[in-house]
Amino acid sequence: MQKTDVLVIGGSAAGIVAATTGKSFYPNKDFLLLRIEKEVLVPCGIPYIFGSLGSSEKNLVSDSTLTKLGIKLKIDKAVSIDQEKKTCKTSDGTEIEFEKLILATGSKPTVPKWLKGTNLENVFTIPKNKDYLDNLLTQIKKCKRVVIIGGGFIGVEIADELNKSVENVTLVEIMPHILQLAFDDELAVRAEEILKERGVQVITNNGVKEIQGKGKVSRVLLNNGDTIEADIVILSTGYHPNSTLAEKSGIETNELGFIKVNAYMLTENKDIFAIGDCAEKRSFITSSIKGLMLASTACSEARIVGMNLYGLSTLRSFKGTISIFCTSIGDTGFGVAGVTETLANQRGFNVVTGTFDGFDKHPGTMEGTKKQLVKLIVTHEDGIIIGGEVIGASSTGELTNLIGLVIENQMTVNALLTSQIGTHPLLTGPPTAYPVIKAAEIVVKQRRRKML
Amino acid sequence: MQKTDVLVIGGSAAGIVAATTGKSFYPNKDFLLLRIEKEVLVPCGIPYIFGSLGSSEKNLVSDSTLTKLGIKLKIDKAVSIDQEKKTCKTSDGTEIEFEKLILATGSKPTVPKWLKGTNLENVFTIPKNKDYLDNLLTQIKKCKRVVIIGGGFIGVEIADELNKSVENVTLVEIMPHILQLAFDDELAVRAEEILKERGVQVITNNGVKEIQGKGKVSRVLLNNGDTIEADIVILSTGYHPNSTLAEKSGIETNELGFIKVNAYMLTENKDIFAIGDCAEKRSFITSSIKGLMLASTACSEARIVGMNLYGLSTLRSFKGTISIFCTSIGDTGFGVAGVTETLANQRGFNVVTGTFDGFDKHPGTMEGTKKQLVKLIVTHEDGIIIGGEVIGASSTGELTNLIGLVIENQMTVNALLTSQIGTHPLLTGPPTAYPVIKAAEIVVKQRRRKML
Repeated sequence: MQKTDVLVIGGSAAGIVAATTGKSFYPNKDFLLLRIEKEVLVPCGIPYIFGSLGSSEKNLVSDSTLTKLGIKLKIDKAVSIDQEKKTCKTSDGTEIEFEKLILATGSKPTVPKWLKGTNLENVFTIPKNKDYLDNLLTQIKKCKRVVIIGGGFIGVEIADELNKSVENVTLVEIMPHILQLAFDDELAVRAEEILKERGVQVITNNGVKEIQGKGKVSRVLLNNGDTIEADIVILSTGYHPNSTLAEKSGIETNELGFIKVNAYMLTENKDIFAIGDCAEKRSFITSSIKGLMLASTACSEARIVGMNLYGLSTLRSFKGTISIFCTSIGDTGFGVAGVTETLANQRGFNVVTGTFDGFDKHPGTMEGTKKQLVKLIVTHEDGIIIGGEVIGASSTGELTNLIGLVIENQMTVNALLTSQIGTHPLLTGPPTAYPVIKAAEIVVKQRRRKML
Repeated sequence: MQKTDVLVIGGSAAGIVAATTGKSFYPNKDFLLLRIEKEVLVPCGIPYIFGSLGSSEKNLVSDSTLTKLGIKLKIDKAVSIDQEKKTCKTSDGTEIEFEKLILATGSKPTVPKWLKGTNLENVFTIPKNKDYLDNLLTQIKKCKRVVIIGGGFIGVEIADELNKSVENVTLVEIMPHILQLAFDDELAVRAEEILKERGVQVITNNGVKEIQGKGKVSRVLLNNGDTIEADIVILSTGYHPNSTLAEKSGIETNELGFIKVNAYMLTENKDIFAIGDCAEKRSFITSSIKGLMLASTACSEARIVGMNLYGLSTLRSFKGTISIFCTSIGDTGFGVAGVTETLANQRGFNVVTGTFDGFDKHPGTMEGTKKQLVKLIVTHEDGIIIGGEVIGASSTGELTNLIGLVIENQMTVNALLTSQIGTHPLLTGPPTAYPVIKAAEIVVKQRRRKML
């Protein structure tokens, strides 16, 4: 019987951050991280293996972050957990006793069961698996026609990257626009236009009926009867939580298959935490259960667990997940924080929105100036900012994070409008027309007009 | 006698934003903007006229922002204000009656009185005056050696820009490092290194004793006896508020010469506001009077006045000035929000700081990845974040603004550490090592260690 104080199962972003934060906060405790991967991929970097990075070798997380803190590492698969005895069995027969357990078992690509042909040769998904992706990359280098099914973030990013070297890249999306679940239409349309301008063939409003071929994939049949020739098909049709181990061990999961947790990422067992893609998410805005999987959210949860391992503090609890993410198509960034206008309306919020089209440098004659659009989504009655969207250039990520903090602090649009910002010709929009503030101003004027 | 509801005196950033915000909030009121300049320069763009922009023509604010809202414009100088009668006389003899007056008269370059030789030909300051700066640019094109006196933001930016075309650019700073009043030493030193690497000759720890020449400047004599040959000398030795009109009209100014105002930017007269470089600033952190002059701060004040013109709201009051600014030397950005560690110590705060050296993209192998350093300054007892500094690339401006919002919301380091951010390989640091969060983590661990 092996012993550790804290056992972390899962070696991607959530597991690493939980272990390192935990070890930093409780340096006298022993930490053991158990994972199946020999080498760990940077999760959000995966699409870039197929273009900008060029190889999975350039997208690895170094183990030194763990080892230099004295965190032990074991490459093996956890097969069962005994909640009573507080032990975990691994596939090599080892039994590990723990005081605290952190489940960070991640997610797996979802292959639609109703879809015929997914077992054909050269039909791939995008798992966080180095060998699998290395093989995919090898096959891609030999091929001319790739069809990607699913126009979410992963599908769009891979399409844009493959387009740099593959002759013919087609992205198929069943909804009217790509990225439609992430952004309001006006942003999704812009993203789609840019992807098309860059040479990706984008087919929307059209689902896939069947993947066809003899042994090996040769074409994709669409719902409208059209066919697309394909040497390779990539399914980017979503992910589902990898909660098998939890379920087998009697740890409760929710209706979407995520491990149920509270504000401290604790399961019903006060010594077992769950974080990351396998752990339940509730919306910061609505408290509804949601299916979001993001490395950044996972790391936020992981930090909370690391700090609360041996003693909870309400100051360090999780108030719900704010969807904050961004991507870049070519050099145009797209970001969103909180709810979109569409989602707010679906949920029953009465909102006022304000959109400002400005610039990311100033004056507009400055070389390299790019457009920066900011849209704010604000509750009509209270003026609380519950969402924001951005189109911009290289500062889009940080600007989206700024809006995330506005939402997290439950700022009103008045507070935002009177808040202070810094500006610089080479680094931001102008002080007179900083897009976040101008969007707030538009909202304030609208709310005021309706009140007077 | 001419009549207007609202009279704005001053046509730069503060005046424009006060007039446009005011007109948007009170569309039935008449607005008249009185200014001396025929054409208005983008204030923060001025240093870039000498390099990136190449001419003042590319750095003009269009009057259409004003005119399309129906704001009237008069190019003339205000010579006196009668507070009782609520009238303003201009130099062409016009008398304008107003309901509300907004003073946005700006600032003027300070020429050290004790310094000999400042009246020599080819000794310049940097006023917001197009004709003056056009002449300076013409002279610069003819010369080989420029000496800039004063290593604050304006001096550094002009030095970096002139260095692109002028053979010999020297920057002289009396303090041990350039930008030393803005940043903690470690950042100021880095800025200085980069400026030197780019070819500017930087002389620090050495003041100017005299500017010498016969009629025209020929050299600069330093305190240590050294001399530097110079065809042109530029004084960037600070600015003072242009409050002559206010003083003449019996409107009170403070010991630094700024027009005294309250949280609504109101003078003692409830119908007269003052904003921008001419208006009093109090620190958000200490409430002390400060001498800060920034277009972004001016615009923030201007929005508050515009919204409060005919009815005050505590929701729209000004809680004090947070210094938030950024600059770029080459493509390395430097930003600061709130107080530096040095200033915090000087003011008597007991602070804990955390600095994290990370990256602005991820993984580190991603092309174009640049270093991103974040330093946070936090009160030891309460854990409130009162300052932050950034070195990074193109996202430095928005990241500095994010830290500004953290300070404005009086967030604790615990709240920041558990807050959510979004990340993306091309747009931000990694989720596992996002520099703002990592810096917070370092602070939390330090505070904890001291408490346990």
